[in-house]
Amino acid sequence: MHVREFQTMTVKTIDLNADLGESFGHYTMGNDSAMLDIVTSANVACGFHGGDPEVMAETFRIAREKGVSVGSHPGFPDLWGFGRRVMPFTPAQIERIVAYQMGAAQALATYSGHRMTYMKTHGALGNLTERDPAIAEAIVNAVKAVDPNLPIMAIALSHLERIGRERGLTVFSEIFADRAYTEDGHLVSRKEPGAVLHDADFAAARAVRMVQNGAIETISGKMLPTRIDTICVHGDNAESVDVARKVRAGFEAAGIALRALT
Amino acid sequence: MHVREFQTMTVKTIDLNADLGESFGHYTMGNDSAMLDIVTSANVACGFHGGDPEVMAETFRIAREKGVSVGSHPGFPDLWGFGRRVMPFTPAQIERIVAYQMGAAQALATYSGHRMTYMKTHGALGNLTERDPAIAEAIVNAVKAVDPNLPIMAIALSHLERIGRERGLTVFSEIFADRAYTEDGHLVSRKEPGAVLHDADFAAARAVRMVQNGAIETISGKMLPTRIDTICVHGDNAESVDVARKVRAGFEAAGIALRALT
Amino acid sequence: MHVREFQTMTVKTIDLNADLGESFGHYTMGNDSAMLDIVTSANVACGFHGGDPEVMAETFRIAREKGVSVGSHPGFPDLWGFGRRVMPFTPAQIERIVAYQMGAAQALATYSGHRMTYMKTHGALGNLTERDPAIAEAIVNAVKAVDPNLPIMAIALSHLERIGRERGLTVFSEIFADRAYTEDGHLVSRKEPGAVLHDADFAAARAVRMVQNGAIETISGKMLPTRIDTICVHGDNAESVDVARKVRAGFEAAGIALRALT
Amino acid sequence: MHVREFQTMTVKTIDLNADLGESFGHYTMGNDSAMLDIVTSANVACGFHGGDPEVMAETFRIAREKGVSVGSHPGFPDLWGFGRRVMPFTPAQIERIVAYQMGAAQALATYSGHRMTYMKTHGALGNLTERDPAIAEAIVNAVKAVDPNLPIMAIALSHLERIGRERGLTVFSEIFADRAYTEDGHLVSRKEPGAVLHDADFAAARAVRMVQNGAIETISGKMLPTRIDTICVHGDNAESVDVARKVRAGFEAAGIALRALT
Repeated sequence: MHVREFQTMTVKTIDLNADLGESFGHYTMGNDSAMLDIVTSANVACGFHGGDPEVMAETFRIAREKGVSVGSHPGFPDLWGFGRRVMPFTPAQIERIVAYQMGAAQALATYSGHRMTYMKTHGALGNLTERDPAIAEAIVNAVKAVDPNLPIMAIALSHLERIGRERGLTVFSEIFADRAYTEDGHLVSRKEPGAVLHDADFAAARAVRMVQNGAIETISGKMLPTRIDTICVHGDNAESVDVARKVRAGFEAAGIALRALT
Repeated sequence: MHVREFQTMTVKTIDLNADLGESFGHYTMGNDSAMLDIVTSANVACGFHGGDPEVMAETFRIAREKGVSVGSHPGFPDLWGFGRRVMPFTPAQIERIVAYQMGAAQALATYSGHRMTYMKTHGALGNLTERDPAIAEAIVNAVKAVDPNLPIMAIALSHLERIGRERGLTVFSEIFADRAYTEDGHLVSRKEPGAVLHDADFAAARAVRMVQNGAIETISGKMLPTRIDTICVHGDNAESVDVARKVRAGFEAAGIALRALT
Repeated sequence: MHVREFQTMTVKTIDLNADLGESFGHYTMGNDSAMLDIVTSANVACGFHGGDPEVMAETFRIAREKGVSVGSHPGFPDLWGFGRRVMPFTPAQIERIVAYQMGAAQALATYSGHRMTYMKTHGALGNLTERDPAIAEAIVNAVKAVDPNLPIMAIALSHLERIGRERGLTVFSEIFADRAYTEDGHLVSRKEPGAVLHDADFAAARAVRMVQNGAIETISGKMLPTRIDTICVHGDNAESVDVARKVRAGFEAAGIALRALT
Repeated sequence: MHVREFQTMTVKTIDLNADLGESFGHYTMGNDSAMLDIVTSANVACGFHGGDPEVMAETFRIAREKGVSVGSHPGFPDLWGFGRRVMPFTPAQIERIVAYQMGAAQALATYSGHRMTYMKTHGALGNLTERDPAIAEAIVNAVKAVDPNLPIMAIALSHLERIGRERGLTVFSEIFADRAYTEDGHLVSRKEPGAVLHDADFAAARAVRMVQNGAIETISGKMLPTRIDTICVHGDNAESVDVARKVRAGFEAAGIALRALT
């Protein structure tokens, strides 16, 4: 049949992204070297919750060499909490701390001969963009003011995804390989049991199912149709690197090409 | 004579610059409000030795409103020492901390609707560019990598002035209204008596003489011909604001127009 | 009459305290020099929300010379927000950041030849001790673990005042000279109009009335009996220094001696 | 023979110390868990070059449980450089930053039920005490002012060892298990080849020889008699933990008991 033939010919692609460049001075975080061989896009910390100018420049340099796309990855100014705590900043103040970090990352990417492909918020700031429309609005304001042609990466079904598109930004929709989803398509809180998937094979198979179906798979197995441009994987420990590797292998085995966002 | 007539018709102009945007959170530094009515260019701190994203955005906004040009003003990461201490960074590391700050400032200037006109290094980092060619080289490397069309402001007769021009950057040459000069045209160290001029009338008259003659006036009164594009004034205390006001008035009285760098 | 004679002989005394030593490097906060001639006790910032080792040592030294008692004044690690923002620390973490700051201040007081008389929490942390029993408990835990004989200064009618006494600490009860009180004896939020008294004469007269009556005077003029050991005054601006001076003068005129806590 | 019998009866003891508690927030440094089973004394970072109040309290708590003595381990305020860079502080300023950190550590040790046994300076600050008498003097000033009965741990043959004893402090003399020594008994600079011993067996055997002979063994094998109270081992990587384990085993095999400083 025509349709079938057409589908066969369609080459599905997906992007794999991870938070990288989070080391600080003599403190190492994660296994950037391994992850830069797995992912197609790197969210590079900007010095507020992790990273420093040396780490940033080096991460951009290696990403360029390996053909990995890069995004700035601003977070709350909270090195101690690694950007995972909600810090007391107003939406207007968040616009400025995001703009500041976007610019710093942009300059160092240019310095290292790379180009910035997107912006993605980190940790607690990223979580706020999922559920707080005022914060999502602030992020969109920052991007539109600083570089309105820069795409953003937003959690699928988040306020940021919606508001970013409404206000004319290019939005890459993101799901998570190792996080469970509630029945309405949101991330299960890390405080709940089962929030993080530790079974690499299950996580990989689920990621492939989600991309093949264009849908988020909830804890109960329900499929919620949504746009999916990129899958977030982690690299902070041996287990998470293993998940990332298996997710990548799963896509390759399923004939879904890994392709960096542009 | 022709020449004389031509000289009479030439309208000399000069730029006045000052370090601004150095407050931090609840801590106020200097009198930005007064200074933004006096100067034509503002060197805006980038959050490492002073300033924060709120202060930066606000300083860029007001500067735009008042028609004051702005430059990024990177310094050592030393809030406690206000960037006035030489910190142990290698030239290569200095490239990255300068690039980082240039980008952060660029983004916030854009955010506030202003445009960046130049880059000028702060405090101890600025002093190093006068006497250490390796540091001057690092600054030029950073600017050429991040934004090769961006002019830099360099201390007259410094290594940075020379190397910047040699390597194709636009360089604005700067002298200081309230600092004494040695016989070879360098700043008298702040550790020496007489390094800082406290007599506002003398400082103003000397500044006019230097611009009229296109020369640095040394302690002994010798005139060393040099290019002069801008005069640095200070605004940290009542006395320095008074010097700045009198310098501006001196130029106006001498028919030398104040004009922002572009 | 006996009673009258007894009252005549009773010498009422009061302590005046203020937050001091809040400058940081080149950034000056408040008018410590003026305030150290007005107050009898100084709450010395410990480097987390303000202050640094230089400022702390110098503040302790001058306080000793002037016979002003000192307390450590720990706050949230938030120099940018000056300790006035609630930061995301658990009660257990607060125990440790308070213990850390108490020790640092104790060592520098000893270094400067002074002795620590009490501990008082700063800003947002102090406000939490008024209304959140878990935070009040954490503060008491820290003091009991580090130095169980050290008195604490607690807001009158706060959870900290109650829990501190219940658990055997010496507690100095504190009211505020320039803050309005609700009908149940709590501080009117700074977000409400009238929260801060700007009329120095009224504030001084009210302070004297409160001490003479051993009661908090609410906005409506109601008197709520409570223990009062010390009055907090501020010194961040010219107006607040004026209030502090008039409060001191008011007590002296009323025959209430100013006496440092011991 | 008498002498032989006497020697047999003499029980030689030695202390093994390592820098611990250097993690910061989510950033882990070294293998504290392994090292606390090897060493008898732990130099605990105080939050300036590494460590934070959570890490400090936890390190003191575990050290107490395992019977490991603890010392405060102040360094330059340089988290990024991990305290290994010489920062621009005057000797007088160093007195204050050392006093601050000693107090903070003292309070948290008490909080965790442990007691402070000594003070040892970290990294670049420690190296300065070896070769710069003004810095050594500053360290002694700080200890004498804050807690004159507290012993200090000083590099054998350093200015700090000499000045500390001259001025009446108890001084524990320290040699390094994995560092080569020059012919005059100083540490070979890390910039020189061979500065760090990587052969665990050689390092262990050399450490035993040095303690048995009461002498520093130089690169050429010369023995320089000196007092030795403690051996510094490292634990930042797998190799260094191995060296530490073999040094401990070497002493046990040689009948030299490991005993914590008191």
